[in-house]
Amino acid sequence: MPFGWGRVSYMWDYRSKWLELPFPVSEYEQRIDKIRKMMEPEKIDCLLVHGNRADRAAVRYLANFEDFYGGDSVVVIPAREAVGMATNAIMHGEPMHSGIQQVWMEDVRCAAHPRTVDKAWTIWDQLEDMLKERGLAEATYGVSGDYADDVVAFIRERFPKAKVKKVTGLLPRAMAIKSRLEVEQIRKACAGADAALTAVMENCKPGVSEYELAGLANEAMFRLGAEETAFPIAMSSGPRAGFKHTAPTDRKLQLGDLVYTDLGCRVGGYYSDCSRNRAVGEPTKEQRHFMEANVLINEACMAAARPGAVIGDIAKIAIEVAKENGYEDYLYFRGHGIGTTTHVPPSFFPGNPAKLEENMVFCFEPMLVKKEFGTGCVEDIYRVTKDGVENLNKCPARWW
Amino acid sequence: MPFGWGRVSYMWDYRSKWLELPFPVSEYEQRIDKIRKMMEPEKIDCLLVHGNRADRAAVRYLANFEDFYGGDSVVVIPAREAVGMATNAIMHGEPMHSGIQQVWMEDVRCAAHPRTVDKAWTIWDQLEDMLKERGLAEATYGVSGDYADDVVAFIRERFPKAKVKKVTGLLPRAMAIKSRLEVEQIRKACAGADAALTAVMENCKPGVSEYELAGLANEAMFRLGAEETAFPIAMSSGPRAGFKHTAPTDRKLQLGDLVYTDLGCRVGGYYSDCSRNRAVGEPTKEQRHFMEANVLINEACMAAARPGAVIGDIAKIAIEVAKENGYEDYLYFRGHGIGTTTHVPPSFFPGNPAKLEENMVFCFEPMLVKKEFGTGCVEDIYRVTKDGVENLNKCPARWW
Repeated sequence: MPFGWGRVSYMWDYRSKWLELPFPVSEYEQRIDKIRKMMEPEKIDCLLVHGNRADRAAVRYLANFEDFYGGDSVVVIPAREAVGMATNAIMHGEPMHSGIQQVWMEDVRCAAHPRTVDKAWTIWDQLEDMLKERGLAEATYGVSGDYADDVVAFIRERFPKAKVKKVTGLLPRAMAIKSRLEVEQIRKACAGADAALTAVMENCKPGVSEYELAGLANEAMFRLGAEETAFPIAMSSGPRAGFKHTAPTDRKLQLGDLVYTDLGCRVGGYYSDCSRNRAVGEPTKEQRHFMEANVLINEACMAAARPGAVIGDIAKIAIEVAKENGYEDYLYFRGHGIGTTTHVPPSFFPGNPAKLEENMVFCFEPMLVKKEFGTGCVEDIYRVTKDGVENLNKCPARWW
Repeated sequence: MPFGWGRVSYMWDYRSKWLELPFPVSEYEQRIDKIRKMMEPEKIDCLLVHGNRADRAAVRYLANFEDFYGGDSVVVIPAREAVGMATNAIMHGEPMHSGIQQVWMEDVRCAAHPRTVDKAWTIWDQLEDMLKERGLAEATYGVSGDYADDVVAFIRERFPKAKVKKVTGLLPRAMAIKSRLEVEQIRKACAGADAALTAVMENCKPGVSEYELAGLANEAMFRLGAEETAFPIAMSSGPRAGFKHTAPTDRKLQLGDLVYTDLGCRVGGYYSDCSRNRAVGEPTKEQRHFMEANVLINEACMAAARPGAVIGDIAKIAIEVAKENGYEDYLYFRGHGIGTTTHVPPSFFPGNPAKLEENMVFCFEPMLVKKEFGTGCVEDIYRVTKDGVENLNKCPARWW
């Protein structure tokens, strides 16, 4: 094996001493049970869940593995035999530098990443061993993941008697409905976002730069336990506020600006994604009306949100309120489920016949975007309760 | 077209007013020229460069497009005809929410992302139009990108008379050698990392938590113009310091701890990746010797670094100094080129016969990692000069 390989052992006996999980192991076992029940009607003997840095949510959800190096990971969920994981997202060829100690599964097999070593076992060699040991050489496999073509090719090549089919919707469906502990974890991510939004809103004063505001926002999130940003912070003021998502610049705020920020963080694998807007100084009548209209849209829509509510019907409410306020042409009706990534079902767009279900957790962000004027968008995170929704954010909506 | 599509036009006439680039357009034109020269011996009529969030560096390098939504982007570089780009990394179905105004290329075609809209033109439809307009239906294509299988399939399906081959090494090779302006940009990213490292090192005091240190570090980077972190900050103290890369926790520093942090940011598309370590309070003799040995390894290796130096030979120097200091068993010899991602050539590992070239820019991070004791690793970024190397970082190496 290559230089430097595995001196800090990644075997369970060693790494279990260092295990730090956001949840008890029973939480993960319940997820595996849930996935296995979903596999039954699909007649799948073993589900292989692929993840990489572009599609990381399911691997974090199932294994608590966070790929911060860049590689391929595959979680193995047989219908009956023991679960496991293989990965080559192994920095410096050194599993314990790569967060492997955070994975609750006992059977984890690491392969060196081709980028930093000259030769090594591959992730496919490791997977082949694992699946053979479980007696699955002739099984029916389901393969999940946006970039899982290589997994399908692996099965076809190494297990020619096995069957394989792609099952793209299964994991997103499972991940859309949250457990009690997941909701609590998202609440922590929301607390980080709330602190960051508050820091930005309170410091929107003439002469303060967008860079400084971004600095304050990120300090607040990491101080409250963020392990990473959710996405690059959006910070726009003045004319650029009408673009919604732009990176901060050295521009200093001026009296009369509209300021818009959209930010979030990841805490224990769970994301927040929230936004606020305000004027620098006293808003003009038009600015106030614009920002108020957005809050009214939010309130009207969320008053109608409950289990069984159709997303397309909620969109109609938003359009109606926007029209009443003269802003129909500037409305984008948007929202998305959130969890171990910023986008899981449900997706909010006009005409969507999908229904809300209890314990879905979603970002709601109907927005008014008027070019060269500003963005009116308050984005909060809601949990669908038994008969309505609960806002998981605490930062005030109105800063005017 | 779907709801909300393109109200803020992404056509050049409109978006060019809002263009903000880290470099003059001539810098990008020179890159295209460089790529075209590299295409000649490969006999490629048109290079298609794919990117997504797992493999984003080349698209940022060529087009200045940063996918902060998650999708597929393809940069089109014909040998003679005009360059262009197509992407579906389009948030809310709204190109100007997605940073499209930052792309210098005039011909950019946006396709809605399937995730937030019900139906839309695909990126493949847009690409087909673009390539037909350039008369390339029967061309020889080169396809670049770690996840570019879909691009190959697209050519085979829509242009059956075309030839297509994968050219994986071309872009990394081009991106390894930096222009003067690129070095200046990396210097800015280093300034952010230096400020963050300094904030952490100065605040390593008993009772300060890892969370607080991460907050200070991130404030410093974003205040100096970071658009994003380079990767999740590593922050470890006490027993966990021997794992090198771990997320911050609420653990409060104690006298006698070793503390290790590894961090970086992205400024105008360019990354930094730097690390420091120190003891809380006065280090023990063993701690001091351990940290000093790492700095001595750095100094000895970088004294030998220059154009033509063989990486494997530099590794031998590191191993020799580690041995002299009694730490051979704890040494990992590592490093990597950096630019629009944290990992471009050259890659530092023992036995690598690759040679340094002038204007390569790389992170050098030989590390001593001793489990349950700590990490000794000072990581700085160096440019290969005409006859040596220049350290682009300013934060002191020794904090003891």
